Amino acid sequence: MTSVQKNFVEGNKEYAANFTQGDLALPPSQKYAILTCMDARIDPAAAFNITLGAAHVIRNAGASARAAFRDIVVSQNLLGTTEVLIVKHTGCGMLTFDNEGGRSAVKQNKGDKAAEEVKDLDFLTFQDLEEKVKEDVEWLKSKAVEEGITITGWIYDCKTGKVRSVV
Amino acid sequence: MTSVQKNFVEGNKEYAANFTQGDLALPPSQKYAILTCMDARIDPAAAFNITLGAAHVIRNAGASARAAFRDIVVSQNLLGTTEVLIVKHTGCGMLTFDNEGGRSAVKQNKGDKAAEEVKDLDFLTFQDLEEKVKEDVEWLKSKAVEEGITITGWIYDCKTGKVRSVV
Repeated sequence: MTSVQKNFVEGNKEYAANFTQGDLALPPSQKYAILTCMDARIDPAAAFNITLGAAHVIRNAGASARAAFRDIVVSQNLLGTTEVLIVKHTGCGMLTFDNEGGRSAVKQNKGDKAAEEVKDLDFLTFQDLEEKVKEDVEWLKSKAVEEGITITGWIYDCKTGKVRSVV
Repeated sequence: MTSVQKNFVEGNKEYAANFTQGDLALPPSQKYAILTCMDARIDPAAAFNITLGAAHVIRNAGASARAAFRDIVVSQNLLGTTEVLIVKHTGCGMLTFDNEGGRSAVKQNKGDKAAEEVKDLDFLTFQDLEEKVKEDVEWLKSKAVEEGITITGWIYDCKTGKVRSVV
């Protein structure tokens, strides 16, 4: 077992020993979803005040609405949520490269066969944080499948821990 | 502002007021990623003992490795992680329907135009939890881009708060 796995298993033992919320329902009690980045510096439950069982938390590289389309459709059509908050953040890794750079990194790290596997992969990077929040919200709002859903966009500041409203 | 947004903003104010970790680095300090479900009953930081800044946390509907391929590639090739833990869970919503059911739900909830938007969407549902953990791990291991990466599979029990190793 790696040290990462040991930390995971040992930490979980402690969590489970004090766990008292085994009867929560599958559908989110507060009927919303948060879409944010996988970035290690974000703890959504703590930073966004999410009670256990209250909300879906979707996380991917860059908090991309396009990459999360399946998740959002499931959240709203199968599990009854009616609101989505898209929360991107300062200092996002997805601001630091583009498709060409991503593919080069793979080729350099893992070789030609790996490069072949990602040759059509859209990394969905972006260059302007605030614009991308707006664009993602707009894109999602343009979908018929989002009819009646409240969609807002926010930026989390990794230096201060503060969120601010964008759109 | 909706009550969901009020809770988000007010809760964040309190979090930011006590925030002291503004200097964490972008790459995860413990060099690993956790892929788990967006399910509202999972709090990865608490349940899996993830220190702020330590790990990428990727969350989608069903903890799908295929849906998270882009995120995993970014985590490992751009941000230096070398280990992935795939954590699916008991009572997952993705065990309760299939592509046909998903598309019907969209059509019923949002109408024909919405149904058209998801007609080619693969919901990536599954029927056997343990088998799907194994299959996802195997699929990821088969990729050249995963060479040298430690990949393990786990199941989190929403009733007990406990994880167990699958593969």
